[in-house]
Amino acid sequence: MKLISYQHNGIDSYGAVTGDRADRVTDLRSIFGSRATDLKALIAAGLLDEAAASIANADATLPLSEVQLLPVIPNPGKIVCVGLNYGEHVRETGREITEKPTLFLRVAESQVAHGDDIVLPPESSKLDYEGEIAIVIGRGGRRIGEADAWNHIAGYACYNDGSIRDWQTATPQWTAGKNFWRTGGFGPWMITRDDIKDNQVMTLITRLNGREMQRTTTDKLIHSIPRQIAHISAFIPLAAGDVIVTGTPGGVGAKRTPPVWMKPGDIVEVEVDAIGVLRNGVCAE
Amino acid sequence: MKLISYQHNGIDSYGAVTGDRADRVTDLRSIFGSRATDLKALIAAGLLDEAAASIANADATLPLSEVQLLPVIPNPGKIVCVGLNYGEHVRETGREITEKPTLFLRVAESQVAHGDDIVLPPESSKLDYEGEIAIVIGRGGRRIGEADAWNHIAGYACYNDGSIRDWQTATPQWTAGKNFWRTGGFGPWMITRDDIKDNQVMTLITRLNGREMQRTTTDKLIHSIPRQIAHISAFIPLAAGDVIVTGTPGGVGAKRTPPVWMKPGDIVEVEVDAIGVLRNGVCAE
Repeated sequence: MKLISYQHNGIDSYGAVTGDRADRVTDLRSIFGSRATDLKALIAAGLLDEAAASIANADATLPLSEVQLLPVIPNPGKIVCVGLNYGEHVRETGREITEKPTLFLRVAESQVAHGDDIVLPPESSKLDYEGEIAIVIGRGGRRIGEADAWNHIAGYACYNDGSIRDWQTATPQWTAGKNFWRTGGFGPWMITRDDIKDNQVMTLITRLNGREMQRTTTDKLIHSIPRQIAHISAFIPLAAGDVIVTGTPGGVGAKRTPPVWMKPGDIVEVEVDAIGVLRNGVCAE
Repeated sequence: MKLISYQHNGIDSYGAVTGDRADRVTDLRSIFGSRATDLKALIAAGLLDEAAASIANADATLPLSEVQLLPVIPNPGKIVCVGLNYGEHVRETGREITEKPTLFLRVAESQVAHGDDIVLPPESSKLDYEGEIAIVIGRGGRRIGEADAWNHIAGYACYNDGSIRDWQTATPQWTAGKNFWRTGGFGPWMITRDDIKDNQVMTLITRLNGREMQRTTTDKLIHSIPRQIAHISAFIPLAAGDVIVTGTPGGVGAKRTPPVWMKPGDIVEVEVDAIGVLRNGVCAE
């Protein structure tokens, strides 16, 4: 099942992408009403199976082209990003692999939906892409064991962990460069866990203006998805709708010779074979 | 005005601490009803002046001792912490002063209220204190100028940026060690801006079991409060209820010889002369 958050006629809603050509939307908010007013609430209430059943029975749908997509989860409780999690990327940054995953946080306002422009702020010209796979947490928990970790996943999405590199590296902590307003792409939808086998090897590709810039497979993750869930939940409870962004492979723009920066008019795509394509333009603020 | 968030009879509420001995609570939630269901909403709706007026007229109050305090803002949109912001602390960490402030984020679940125990998790024995002053944002904004920054402050509170040091330094990013569940104290109340002169020099003291461990004054901040607000809002919009934690001075436990770690049964206090005393016990999880 492909689940999206969106606006339609100025109202925030959420639904499932349906139809043979994945071009229709079944509005789930109108089906679930006060039982689940947004996608995070649907997940938290354990209603994904019921949602799948209602989609099968729903006859009213909207054209996907008529809705304004939002980031998959517009209001996550937390967005935990894993850095330095593919060997090639660790090497290009000149850093070392650590026993524990390197983590930083993004805030919701730093995100944009599929189809929206990523924003180059006037404060910098060093806007970079980072193609990644995002996990959306389903069942929350603390100190989740690696063996049980898959059971805590609601689904997967593509993520572009857009970064303002000079602000990221101006201090020992990356926070500012990872949290510029509307620099992180999150979409186009969440594929529910039942559509992707646990531990299935996914291929992740980033393209800038059609040119392939990054490519990897998830078997190359230094800290696997279960390990990430176990590690993060060791220090803080994970909750339904929390997002874990699992790391980017080698090939970022900043480490190329010469460096490649995204500029207004560019089109950046993050494709994951099992999920789909997240596509964003770039505009100047 | 001293504003608190609390539970009473199992219901989340918020109010003002009143009475000659600051031992009574005027319940503001019952006064404002659906106009402001929590303290963040009160601030966002610009109702602080009206709250002050209603307190003067309210006759029903509760004993402060009968309510269960919550972190001052239990649900901030973001908690932005400034690291390395007093010279003595920068020196004891062996790092260098950077032109831009060093920032990291905490999540709400990492906080506890005044009077609650800070939690030592089984994963570590290296629990450290960091006495700080927290700002609560009133009027939101983006690219706030330094000259206008004071006008965006709703008030001030004491903060203990409790840290699990070995997890903080295990990777290049401090996120894990700064976000263990219930390690950060935030309280006891927010003193509204009208009670503290803009740019007033405040004295900040941290005591562990009655022994003074840290002492500074806010004129020693490397990046001043207006500078912090300007810098953070340059990359992300600040919103009502957002929290900025302004940095800790020298004297942290990790940098003492021998190091001092907090242990179950300890009492840690963060006192700011213009605000009050944040007091927390320490318990093992």
